[in-house]
Amino acid sequence: MVHVDLPINKTAEEPLYRQIIRLVRERIVEGSWVPGERLPGSRELADTLGISRISVVNAYAELREEGLIVGQAGRGTFVTGPNGLTNDPRALPSVAANPIAHVTQRHPPNVIAFSGGAPAEEFLPVSLIRQAYNAVLDRDGADALLYEETEGYLPLRQAIAEYSRTTGINCRAEHVLITGGCQQALDMAVQALLSEGDALITTNPTYLGILDLARVRRVQVFGIPMDEDGIKIDALQEALIHHRARAIYIAPTYHNPTGTVMSIHRRRRLLQVAADFGVPVLEDGVYHELGFAGTPPPPLKALDSEGIVLHTNGFSKIVLPGTRIGYVIGEGPVWERIMRVKRAADICTPTLNQRAMHYFLQTGALSGHLDRVRKIIRERRDSMIRSLQRHMPEGTRWSTPTGGMYLWVELPHNGPTVAELYNNAIKQGVTFAMGPMFHTDGGGGYFMRLNFAAQAPDKIEEGVRRLRAAWHGLSAQNSGVVLRDTEHIL
Amino acid sequence: MVHVDLPINKTAEEPLYRQIIRLVRERIVEGSWVPGERLPGSRELADTLGISRISVVNAYAELREEGLIVGQAGRGTFVTGPNGLTNDPRALPSVAANPIAHVTQRHPPNVIAFSGGAPAEEFLPVSLIRQAYNAVLDRDGADALLYEETEGYLPLRQAIAEYSRTTGINCRAEHVLITGGCQQALDMAVQALLSEGDALITTNPTYLGILDLARVRRVQVFGIPMDEDGIKIDALQEALIHHRARAIYIAPTYHNPTGTVMSIHRRRRLLQVAADFGVPVLEDGVYHELGFAGTPPPPLKALDSEGIVLHTNGFSKIVLPGTRIGYVIGEGPVWERIMRVKRAADICTPTLNQRAMHYFLQTGALSGHLDRVRKIIRERRDSMIRSLQRHMPEGTRWSTPTGGMYLWVELPHNGPTVAELYNNAIKQGVTFAMGPMFHTDGGGGYFMRLNFAAQAPDKIEEGVRRLRAAWHGLSAQNSGVVLRDTEHIL
Repeated sequence: MVHVDLPINKTAEEPLYRQIIRLVRERIVEGSWVPGERLPGSRELADTLGISRISVVNAYAELREEGLIVGQAGRGTFVTGPNGLTNDPRALPSVAANPIAHVTQRHPPNVIAFSGGAPAEEFLPVSLIRQAYNAVLDRDGADALLYEETEGYLPLRQAIAEYSRTTGINCRAEHVLITGGCQQALDMAVQALLSEGDALITTNPTYLGILDLARVRRVQVFGIPMDEDGIKIDALQEALIHHRARAIYIAPTYHNPTGTVMSIHRRRRLLQVAADFGVPVLEDGVYHELGFAGTPPPPLKALDSEGIVLHTNGFSKIVLPGTRIGYVIGEGPVWERIMRVKRAADICTPTLNQRAMHYFLQTGALSGHLDRVRKIIRERRDSMIRSLQRHMPEGTRWSTPTGGMYLWVELPHNGPTVAELYNNAIKQGVTFAMGPMFHTDGGGGYFMRLNFAAQAPDKIEEGVRRLRAAWHGLSAQNSGVVLRDTEHIL
Repeated sequence: MVHVDLPINKTAEEPLYRQIIRLVRERIVEGSWVPGERLPGSRELADTLGISRISVVNAYAELREEGLIVGQAGRGTFVTGPNGLTNDPRALPSVAANPIAHVTQRHPPNVIAFSGGAPAEEFLPVSLIRQAYNAVLDRDGADALLYEETEGYLPLRQAIAEYSRTTGINCRAEHVLITGGCQQALDMAVQALLSEGDALITTNPTYLGILDLARVRRVQVFGIPMDEDGIKIDALQEALIHHRARAIYIAPTYHNPTGTVMSIHRRRRLLQVAADFGVPVLEDGVYHELGFAGTPPPPLKALDSEGIVLHTNGFSKIVLPGTRIGYVIGEGPVWERIMRVKRAADICTPTLNQRAMHYFLQTGALSGHLDRVRKIIRERRDSMIRSLQRHMPEGTRWSTPTGGMYLWVELPHNGPTVAELYNNAIKQGVTFAMGPMFHTDGGGGYFMRLNFAAQAPDKIEEGVRRLRAAWHGLSAQNSGVVLRDTEHIL
């Protein structure tokens, strides 16, 4: 139970429920109240504070909306964690501030966006896709416009199963469910595996879409530290002992945002630990095909002798995002439930899109397309690293990923945090994704994720120049602050 | 626990697991084993029958697939009922028996399907849609293949707002969210309005997709009786007093499955009661445009002075289902949450599909298309009513809908129930949707929903003949049963 220390002022102008919201938010953000701790019931807190219960009820409702606390039927109300996805703890995680907005946000043309999750426009095989749509409408007519089976278009599922077997995943079409992009694959899996209030374990940092999903689905998230081999196993075991986790979300290959590739040894240990605790693993494989320097280890699902892995993937990053075709591969008792979740969600993924994607795959064009994409993004990674070396202040550090689309950059700690930098960067005409958005605990204050794949080299160079300008502008101010702080400490 | 009375024959040619499947199915269909009852564990049943456990495991797996039983982790295996529905909220039906499967199920060509929710293939404007896809790819290139804003493609939202204003709904593009069909619009609204365990009120009978959704989202559903004007207001008030409902789901116009149109007076009273209790109304308007005899009253959202209605609609029934474009119109505090739910669900609805639908709407072809569709489905309604008059047994009754796609048919109570009729009907080559699937309380045992829109008149005539044959086949047997029962009682 949290220590209740909320200095309510009954004579203040600020409504009582607003004061409660503000004070609880502060306790959580400053870390006095930690994830998993129970809050008093609304009646109990009202009595403690000597105020009416309705103020507490209203405050709790808003705090739940913000994702700071979660109610569990029959068990009480719990802290879920600081508002990790917004850096301004006072801000409600509104639509605008919501992290995944970065994925879809379209910036004015003068802004160089390193923030997004989309591949570059010039990668998109527009004419091939157009041919695919026309060929399917020619071939199938009205059939391509009717409802599809909930599981998905069978030939596409067969093609995905066939491809997946080449990565070592032992599956057939019946193990494949087609979804609205990889995000819906994750959502279906989360909904099939977890109820409200259940615990989900992931890495820290992690994909912001899974944090978004967990918040909306009222799932508690616990973030486990990583090293260069992936999630730390001892910390994972610790968490599994303390929380009754219902799933472990892992992106083992070209991890978003860090670019890390989990070693084969770590993969095996992870699966062993998950099996020991009887906790399913939700694998995000969406960057697996985007390796440009060496071959990554097989997906977790390929090593899954216990049948505890749900493998999600899709075509958003390797072909095109706007068609929204993803999939999940799984088996066992959860598999029936996941189908029901999908049907209730939207009956089926659009027929025509599935058939067009299948057609595109059948032409054999994917392999050549991927070769081109890998070559280009490797060049862009190198461009961005050169630009960072040229322009960023001393002490800036970054990953050197061997696949995926992102650099994970740490700014020197003697300058602004990324949250401080953000508005200035936009003024300079560049955007990035802020480190704390990827954390469950508000960490990552000096980290940013830069998408190197989405911009041509000249834009990359110019964008990094702008980043530098934004940083130096604030750093000048900040060094004053640092000095004053130092004086104060001295 | 069920009474285990399974006369297994160990020397029969029929494999043991097949015998178990057959016998369990019989127990459930004849009603000896009732929904909610627990089955013995596989080990226990194997011991009781003196057979190997694997036979029981295989039999249970197939029975689960059929939706006759359901396994619940840590609790055991339960009877779900002859059609996969149950009143026991702990039990969940399976994929195969799941009611909404009827929407997407594709039958062999020799079966005349009155069971589905899809419009007829010949309604689909294939060539116009094809033109739309090509025109959009020409015009927008890669933009049509990237992520879309979560809210949806702005011109489409504007077009929908403009259209909705003609139905009396006062809205602008910012009040419109594009979704993956009307089903996802409902799902987003349910997720935004209700947590697990919350109460949702609807009519009895109601749309099976909302029951499916509620079950998957672990929401409690309470069904309120209807009369020819729609939901009964006194019963609704009673329910609102006894359950803390978080939403009222209503399909006011061409209600699925009954075809009822709620009167304007009833609409006003419903909104008044909902406002009095502070409960949002989730309006399903998906058949609003399919009126073929007179103009229906305005949507609830058009009468919504309090801002408590979320209005869902889509293009599945009026243009084509396979593109999966629906929408929800709303405002107020729930609106921000619904956007977050949508983003977490799948980031966005496919860009190209939204733009193609927008293009199609801009051509002005919808109005002429709808005129044709209305004319055809009116003729088909008349065909089906004539066929029913000609063939169905005395005492059969049906609605005469003025819009939508369905007849709601009540069989005479001296014959088989629809559940008893179902397998025989399939053998005769005709399918229908069973009444109990649309009920929250297992009611509707003598009702069936027939889709008259999806079949040409000659198929309608032949399908109804087959229905009659199926009914007479069973009715002959049944009258014997009735006699024996009567003797027994006497």
